Amino acid sequence: MTTAPLTRDDCAALDAADPLAPLRDQFTLPPGVNYLDGNSLGVMPATAPARAQAVVQQEWGEGLIRSWNSAGWITLPQRVGDKIARLVGAAPGEVVVADSTSVNLFKVLSAALTLARRQAPGRRVILSERSNFPTDLYIAQSLAAQHGAELELVAPEQIAERLDERVAVLMLTQVNYRTGAMHDMAALTARAHAVGALTVWDLAHSAGAIPVDLNGAGADFAIGCGYKYLNGGPGAPAFVWAHARHAAHIEQPLSGWMGHASPFTFDTAYRPAAGMARYLCGTPSVIGMSVLECGVDTLLAAEPLGGMAALRAKSLALSDLVLAQVAARCAAHGLRSVTPAEHAHRGSQVSLACPPELDGYAVMQALIEQGVVGDFRAGDGTPEQPHLLRFGFTPLYTRFVDVHDAVTVLAQVLDTAAWRAPRFQHKAAVT
Amino acid sequence: MTTAPLTRDDCAALDAADPLAPLRDQFTLPPGVNYLDGNSLGVMPATAPARAQAVVQQEWGEGLIRSWNSAGWITLPQRVGDKIARLVGAAPGEVVVADSTSVNLFKVLSAALTLARRQAPGRRVILSERSNFPTDLYIAQSLAAQHGAELELVAPEQIAERLDERVAVLMLTQVNYRTGAMHDMAALTARAHAVGALTVWDLAHSAGAIPVDLNGAGADFAIGCGYKYLNGGPGAPAFVWAHARHAAHIEQPLSGWMGHASPFTFDTAYRPAAGMARYLCGTPSVIGMSVLECGVDTLLAAEPLGGMAALRAKSLALSDLVLAQVAARCAAHGLRSVTPAEHAHRGSQVSLACPPELDGYAVMQALIEQGVVGDFRAGDGTPEQPHLLRFGFTPLYTRFVDVHDAVTVLAQVLDTAAWRAPRFQHKAAVT
Repeated sequence: MTTAPLTRDDCAALDAADPLAPLRDQFTLPPGVNYLDGNSLGVMPATAPARAQAVVQQEWGEGLIRSWNSAGWITLPQRVGDKIARLVGAAPGEVVVADSTSVNLFKVLSAALTLARRQAPGRRVILSERSNFPTDLYIAQSLAAQHGAELELVAPEQIAERLDERVAVLMLTQVNYRTGAMHDMAALTARAHAVGALTVWDLAHSAGAIPVDLNGAGADFAIGCGYKYLNGGPGAPAFVWAHARHAAHIEQPLSGWMGHASPFTFDTAYRPAAGMARYLCGTPSVIGMSVLECGVDTLLAAEPLGGMAALRAKSLALSDLVLAQVAARCAAHGLRSVTPAEHAHRGSQVSLACPPELDGYAVMQALIEQGVVGDFRAGDGTPEQPHLLRFGFTPLYTRFVDVHDAVTVLAQVLDTAAWRAPRFQHKAAVT
Repeated sequence: MTTAPLTRDDCAALDAADPLAPLRDQFTLPPGVNYLDGNSLGVMPATAPARAQAVVQQEWGEGLIRSWNSAGWITLPQRVGDKIARLVGAAPGEVVVADSTSVNLFKVLSAALTLARRQAPGRRVILSERSNFPTDLYIAQSLAAQHGAELELVAPEQIAERLDERVAVLMLTQVNYRTGAMHDMAALTARAHAVGALTVWDLAHSAGAIPVDLNGAGADFAIGCGYKYLNGGPGAPAFVWAHARHAAHIEQPLSGWMGHASPFTFDTAYRPAAGMARYLCGTPSVIGMSVLECGVDTLLAAEPLGGMAALRAKSLALSDLVLAQVAARCAAHGLRSVTPAEHAHRGSQVSLACPPELDGYAVMQALIEQGVVGDFRAGDGTPEQPHLLRFGFTPLYTRFVDVHDAVTVLAQVLDTAAWRAPRFQHKAAVT
């Protein structure tokens, strides 16, 4: 690009003109922090402390056991699920909140394998992407062993060609956690269905980040995470969806009492609930689910302002901005974006590959010390799996000036080699 | 018994002399509530609101992603697990907090079946009790189908005789949720081992309620609930234990990333963590686990006062008292205790079977209206499975006068037939 990069004033003007800007007031952001890690843990909604307090002190402390009815605990999985449904192209009643993403993946991948192989017993392959998030691969490995199937891992560009009659289930995370590359859910689902395979979509980096249309894509099963772009708090419960054509006649192996057709008759025999309630298992995390609702509400607040489509437009403007700013202001340092330049293939993050001479871990530590919080994702240092500086954009609270400021700090850390200071060299347990 | 029943003054004297009485100050009890339902949902520790607030507002809101290290989120499953271990006869490192009781049962029952059948492939039976808590039976039904095993359900007195070489796993809840009858863990474990079977113990109504000695009994696997006698809050995470002889070499099927040997290297292949960490699955519920810690701490506070043994002695005195009081003051109404009279066979509750002419649901509603909160557990109305009035005792906060007062209200509700009022007749969704 030959146009001059935007100045900070230009960015401030963009913020001033941004109709989504008031949504930032929904959050309590710690002073001095430029938070670009909402794809790892979303920021706290300002309503969360009071909600947590009300659940603990009033609903539990005063209501005690009566709150299962009087405070609506018993319908929380459905109530919060219905709100999430609005963000992912699902209908009311199609999403329930439960357990963790990993546990929910176990449920739906097991259901999908059972269904696919009931229709075509010879199909043995779960097809996925080699750089899918590890927990997805681990759960798939377990179920593959149990079902006599095999997990086939390929590069993203090989997925379409490897989708054939051997495949029982295509299991993909829509947006890659490392690169931010986004799959075309509708196209890949259609292609999977054309060869008789089912699809399981992990929306961990999609829900609340990009417009998702599960029913529009005709997908089969989906799961997603509560604590990233949904701003649900650390370890927030996850969610699970199945297309209406599957929900009512597929059992899943985690047949706990909350998924029973009539949990409080205490029957001896399991009888799955109608529809998605059968994807519940044990007693749900009431406090966690209540706080998650605060996070989901921050996204629903965007609905009058254009909803996920408007958030998406801003997200792309933010990631375009960081790419242009890095290109213009950090060019000497050899950072290379591994995030697709094409909007249609990009999620809501930008990941920059570090050249061999740059210690990406130390660079990120130096950024964090100056209040710019992204994260570092180690690779093996090869061009295929480079070490990454990862920055997530949450248009609910990320401003254009934040992106400009972050690149200013990055350029300064690189130009001054500040990252070489010894205090940045040590690896922590979690980065 | 021919001795006169204790008066309320006698009970007040017992409370005044009770060295455990100060432990009640650890809880915030709603005024006007005589809470005898801690076996369904424990009372809120007074520390819980501030802890929830600190986790939400400081650790999440201010610390954000850094709190995985700085606030110790990453080691919470082990830290709280080590505290629970002290209550159940386990060693440090042997208990982790994770997921729900149902999900944890899936893990350990699967592990136990795999192990048992690796040693003796012909064994096909999971032996359990017909009136085990339903979620245990549902999970066992699912795993039995998956492993080509069968779930055999018997009456409690038949367990010992049905334990033979056909049995792969004996799966029992130590204290029955309906009757409060307690199994002899050491004796049944020894008998199971004598025929080559493994044991899975559900401690839902044991942990924090009675002294449990998992290692002393030589048990194989155990799980337990956080929100009953551990006072961990609604939907609190559960815990899981495996004997050291199994923990390190048994994989479980919910192979999520938090159970990986090195979660943050993001390996493509699952490699289970050493020891019990492999029983973790997805990202843990940080808020729920933090609040659970407050509950567990209320039990550890009893350690200088004699710990679980002292709590057990008080619990038995409380249940003895209610049995004697009901016998003396409600004799005309045909209530019959289904809870064993023998201390060695009794948990920390008393369940009273209703004669056909008494609508137990309405009786409990009438009690609750007067502030006496127990719960109603429907049966089928037969002598084998009667409708029950269920009262749980939590010696941390239940006083002798509470028991006396509860029976006073019960006697009055029965004597005046107050329960026949129309407002008590309607069944709510959760009782």
